[in-house]
Amino acid sequence: MAEYSSMTKEALSEEYKKLSEVLTLYKAQGLSLNMARGKPGAQQLDISSGILNTVCESTNFRASDCPDCRNYGNLDGFEEIKVLFADLLGVESKNIFVGGNSSLNMMFDTIACMMEQGCGDLPWNKQGEIRFLCPVPGYDRHFGITEYFGIKMIPVATNENGPDMDEVERLVASDASVKGIWCVPKYSNPTGITYSAETVKRFASLRPAAKDFRIMWDNAYIIHDINDTPDTLVNIFDELKKTGKEDMVFEFCSTSKITFPGAGVAAIAASEYNLSILKKRYAFATIGYDKLNMLRHLNYFKNLDGILAHMQKHRAILEPRFNMVTETLTRELDGLGIASWTNPNGGYFVSVDVVNGCAKRVVELCRETGVVLTGAGATYPYGIDPNDSNIRIAPSYPPVEELEKAMAVFCICVKLAAIEKLVG
Amino acid sequence: MAEYSSMTKEALSEEYKKLSEVLTLYKAQGLSLNMARGKPGAQQLDISSGILNTVCESTNFRASDCPDCRNYGNLDGFEEIKVLFADLLGVESKNIFVGGNSSLNMMFDTIACMMEQGCGDLPWNKQGEIRFLCPVPGYDRHFGITEYFGIKMIPVATNENGPDMDEVERLVASDASVKGIWCVPKYSNPTGITYSAETVKRFASLRPAAKDFRIMWDNAYIIHDINDTPDTLVNIFDELKKTGKEDMVFEFCSTSKITFPGAGVAAIAASEYNLSILKKRYAFATIGYDKLNMLRHLNYFKNLDGILAHMQKHRAILEPRFNMVTETLTRELDGLGIASWTNPNGGYFVSVDVVNGCAKRVVELCRETGVVLTGAGATYPYGIDPNDSNIRIAPSYPPVEELEKAMAVFCICVKLAAIEKLVG
Repeated sequence: MAEYSSMTKEALSEEYKKLSEVLTLYKAQGLSLNMARGKPGAQQLDISSGILNTVCESTNFRASDCPDCRNYGNLDGFEEIKVLFADLLGVESKNIFVGGNSSLNMMFDTIACMMEQGCGDLPWNKQGEIRFLCPVPGYDRHFGITEYFGIKMIPVATNENGPDMDEVERLVASDASVKGIWCVPKYSNPTGITYSAETVKRFASLRPAAKDFRIMWDNAYIIHDINDTPDTLVNIFDELKKTGKEDMVFEFCSTSKITFPGAGVAAIAASEYNLSILKKRYAFATIGYDKLNMLRHLNYFKNLDGILAHMQKHRAILEPRFNMVTETLTRELDGLGIASWTNPNGGYFVSVDVVNGCAKRVVELCRETGVVLTGAGATYPYGIDPNDSNIRIAPSYPPVEELEKAMAVFCICVKLAAIEKLVG
Repeated sequence: MAEYSSMTKEALSEEYKKLSEVLTLYKAQGLSLNMARGKPGAQQLDISSGILNTVCESTNFRASDCPDCRNYGNLDGFEEIKVLFADLLGVESKNIFVGGNSSLNMMFDTIACMMEQGCGDLPWNKQGEIRFLCPVPGYDRHFGITEYFGIKMIPVATNENGPDMDEVERLVASDASVKGIWCVPKYSNPTGITYSAETVKRFASLRPAAKDFRIMWDNAYIIHDINDTPDTLVNIFDELKKTGKEDMVFEFCSTSKITFPGAGVAAIAASEYNLSILKKRYAFATIGYDKLNMLRHLNYFKNLDGILAHMQKHRAILEPRFNMVTETLTRELDGLGIASWTNPNGGYFVSVDVVNGCAKRVVELCRETGVVLTGAGATYPYGIDPNDSNIRIAPSYPPVEELEKAMAVFCICVKLAAIEKLVG
């Protein structure tokens, strides 16, 4: 089929009629499919079932700096679990704070700490209106945190190398009310791109007007490769050492998409100075996190190699799903000039850009057919996609047959919305 | 021996010399004993080892309102675990929010939420100087939270029925800047007293000047009886129903001293209105807490009876320890007129009041002899005990032989400090 823009109104209307009939057939199936949230599927959870037996009655609960992991103590975790995360993130164990089941929670805590205490002369909440840069499309739960704290969000364009660094450098250097930026530097949510080496170096070389500027480096998909040609991300702390700006970054990660979402372990990597600030708050907020669950992960993986081997099992499940998604998009939409999409080497999402002004309509049509997608606009601060074009596809959760059906419905809806826009 | 106040200086000095010699012998033993924090001992942790096997490879991870407890979902826990906590606290499951491993963390989150959002017209952090009432002696980690948020703390005296309710009623009714009060209503930390029925009713009948006044009802020791004559605490929510003030209280509890400290499950009980406010913050802070650990607790205990039976095992370990502490205090200090102490039916602490002006000295003398106690002043806001007389004893953690030794040292130090004070 030719590009829609080259087709006559009659031809498009004819196509619209055919597509609507097919969609009606799908509607009659009473579908209830979900491609909205980046949730591992049941098969992926089964991969990790062995971890549940690693801490049992007969376990030795002692760690090198913790006499008994069943009891209170060790605000930031014990040494061996810190070493595991340090190896994963490429830092030293003294730069690790091991938390509970949620890196999002640690990000929220970090922003709260900056608001309440700051990391300079004044807390963020005593400096009037402050701003955060938000590379878009991005992650709605990040934007939710800054919105909750009343931090004004400024969208920044991204390309295949990462955020527009000319814009980032300009905004950061010229405006002391710019206090931070949200980054998912590897297999970014939702585009799946990985920041280039130059992008990482430019981040490490930023010259913020605000002395208390912080980069929220959410490395959620650090080892979440899904094919033979994984991306490589330069370790930002290596670059920060060169520029002498180790205090500029808080890095986050989690085992949620390695073992169990919501029953894994999260950690922060940061300079000792930054951790000392966080600890001033954490020491009042808690006595510490679940060291038995940390021990479960340590006993199960043993070391970084154990985690990497485990990720191959995730890959085996996810790779065919991602292939199906991108193959379906190519087969159904290629050459029509009505959509573009990413083809990531890892992560949890495929990002689709449909005809401007059509994203909400596509999501609506899908919903009417029983296919739930992430809401249009979710990938932008305040839920406002200025182009109303970006849609995030999450292939991991539904069973494969359902995913196939959901993608078929999605492609039909993309076409229908495009024709509605073209024909008027 | 007679009351010290009736002895001559010479007699006291002679006694001082003898006691110092005994202390020197203890010093020579190079002791390292800890009676500072309310930490269950190793034997108590072993009680719960069976819980570690209850969620394993073959477990059914489904709950009535949660298809898979290994995956994201259910911000506030699943129905069956809410029912377990609801039964424990005497409320309905709709009034329960199940959290992570720490009730302290939930208390911190609650105060943070009140500061940021409030529960009325304005957030607490937009109302200038605000205050909290602090029944004393009390729990240092409570005071730490209010101090962290810059909330001014007003100590309120307590007696064997609870806080001085005349004073509480007066302060609360006359001052709209009084936003809350910290309570440990059962086996209070550190006095071990339980609020009388009248005290609970008076709390439920408070008429605060501040519409956004909240009672932080920390029911940490709700079923933590240690003998045949346990205390009974009236259920404050029953009383609040009668006065129509269910929004006035946040209640907290945790399984930290039931299963594992730091690896248990915590929960809040509150009105649906109050929970809706907390959820506005929790929904941004996290996706939810560890449902696998909630499932562990559900599978292990099955119901409230299971928990109560389990607590009998804790009692068997703690009862002799508490008896030893109070018997040693009686044997060594009774009749000397230099100390008074509580004799609780449950909880984790014995509270001792030594001669005014002597608590710091007693703690110092003990520390020099290798016995660590909770710091003098810790049981008061800002660490300031105006009488410098209260010391909190925690009998649970050290092995029994060590506890015996630590108590012997403690009693000697109480005597020495008293004599120093009397003789000058």
